[in-house]
Amino acid sequence: MKVMDILKKYSESIDKEIEASLNTIDPTKLCEASDHLIKAGGKKIRPSLVVLSCEAVGGKSEDALKTAASMELIHTFSLIHDDIMDKDEMRRGKPSVHMLWGEPMAILAGDTLFSKAFETILDTDVENIPPKRVVEALRTVVDSCIKICEGQALDIGFEGKLDVKEDEYMNMIYKKTAALIAASTKAGTILGGGTEEQIQALAEYGRLIGLAFQIQDDYLDVVSDEEDIGKPVGSDIVEGKMTLMVVHALANASKDDKERLISILKANNEDLVDDAIAIFNKYGSIEYTRDIALRNVKTAKELLDVLEDSEAKESLKLLADFVLERNH
Amino acid sequence: MKVMDILKKYSESIDKEIEASLNTIDPTKLCEASDHLIKAGGKKIRPSLVVLSCEAVGGKSEDALKTAASMELIHTFSLIHDDIMDKDEMRRGKPSVHMLWGEPMAILAGDTLFSKAFETILDTDVENIPPKRVVEALRTVVDSCIKICEGQALDIGFEGKLDVKEDEYMNMIYKKTAALIAASTKAGTILGGGTEEQIQALAEYGRLIGLAFQIQDDYLDVVSDEEDIGKPVGSDIVEGKMTLMVVHALANASKDDKERLISILKANNEDLVDDAIAIFNKYGSIEYTRDIALRNVKTAKELLDVLEDSEAKESLKLLADFVLERNH
Repeated sequence: MKVMDILKKYSESIDKEIEASLNTIDPTKLCEASDHLIKAGGKKIRPSLVVLSCEAVGGKSEDALKTAASMELIHTFSLIHDDIMDKDEMRRGKPSVHMLWGEPMAILAGDTLFSKAFETILDTDVENIPPKRVVEALRTVVDSCIKICEGQALDIGFEGKLDVKEDEYMNMIYKKTAALIAASTKAGTILGGGTEEQIQALAEYGRLIGLAFQIQDDYLDVVSDEEDIGKPVGSDIVEGKMTLMVVHALANASKDDKERLISILKANNEDLVDDAIAIFNKYGSIEYTRDIALRNVKTAKELLDVLEDSEAKESLKLLADFVLERNH
Repeated sequence: MKVMDILKKYSESIDKEIEASLNTIDPTKLCEASDHLIKAGGKKIRPSLVVLSCEAVGGKSEDALKTAASMELIHTFSLIHDDIMDKDEMRRGKPSVHMLWGEPMAILAGDTLFSKAFETILDTDVENIPPKRVVEALRTVVDSCIKICEGQALDIGFEGKLDVKEDEYMNMIYKKTAALIAASTKAGTILGGGTEEQIQALAEYGRLIGLAFQIQDDYLDVVSDEEDIGKPVGSDIVEGKMTLMVVHALANASKDDKERLISILKANNEDLVDDAIAIFNKYGSIEYTRDIALRNVKTAKELLDVLEDSEAKESLKLLADFVLERNH
């Protein structure tokens, strides 16, 4: 089974849950603004991870569908608010929500999706699944929401700061990106009735592939071509963004190279991208970044040994590899 | 017992819960931005209503404290986001969060308080209180959060619209203001183990005093003096804000008076406040508004007949009257 088939397998059921949740929003404008990015599509990796984790410990996919839908609602809420904060004008190939409806309505659309996410989890049919599990799943999800906010605040705090340590950087991307992915696999495992060992292992699997996902993003910025990633190569460098390569190079470069890299990151000049890449190469920063992503995915897959063999287990393995295969 | 004593009675315990919830937020900047309006103080009416409703049906106040704290977190979240949307520069006598930390951090502070609110409810000790009740309370709170977003969207939609019908206006203030107050009394009653009849009655009590609270705000704008309400008399008129008086006058005035009122609302001119008030008086709009507030409070108090006599019941009666007594 290919990754796209795995992601497609539940997408219709997940979409139905999401639409059922959103179509009661009133007034229409708020409903449309809330639904815009959902309609623009997305790979639905987080909801698929919820359902697969539930199945992988012997649970039924339908018992995890509402929580799966809610993870996509939370992910979308955070994209809408992040786009306002970062003044990003495009998302998923369409104008971002605040570009179309203005900032006030975009803030509200995010808040609405956030509320709807909790409503959706709470609608889980407790005839089929013990309420205690639903509460545990909910607690996991709420915890990741707090981390998302903290991660975004840390990221904002990195702007203009050029002495970010690797552990600070890893903590930021854990909270901003990996925590929600870890919550997806953990919540799914809880809903499916996994053992404590399985819950911990799947949460860690999620954390590791979540980190690899972000690190791969950093890596792709310098090794892809424009066509693949849909933006010019080196845009992170031009924007002066903190990435794992920058963190590594700044920690390891000579005084001169460090100063040169800092001046490039501040210059906002695309002609200097190759110079920055040369510095990354000189100190092995690109290889270092790729290695961490590879190691995370390898460890993540090993953690799946706590599961009995199943189609869901194989799908989780493929999804871990997919993090490194994707080119955008 | 006086209202201020009632509100003070639990404020220390409620503040402790709130601080325990917020002091783990990292980074510091996000923690400070999230805590700013909480520290600026507030009357804590919503949390007090949670605790009193719980006690009024025989529950223990300590079982309702976490949910009480979470209602204040949600209220504060909505104030922070509303201030961004409405470009309000002051709140509770201090600069609003976005004025001090900028819009991105203010959006995040609101999102963080929102997440923390759910975490806090979920921390309710289920040794003392059946988990089913906690889930029911949570559902009530989540439902009111969706309504808050919808209410704010409706309010934004009223801007520049001068044919708002009374039922549309009442629906907006119900969602924007009364729903959270209704959720406070309903959640408290649920946690205290109230009967279905008591839960419905207390929810309706909350809805009615919540509506009266907003309508009284509309009323005070034209009948108070500046010193009492802390803003110039008639500022709603100058800002062209939709209020119950405007809705009533526009529905009942002659063609000429209606056109005159519309031109005043569009003029943004404080010299015209008296002219608008003259039109309100001509059509009995001020009296009409006050009557609705009075009637709501009267009905709200009658609904408390479902409760056995207790100090908490008396306090709820006094809080209902307080809605009309307050002058700001």
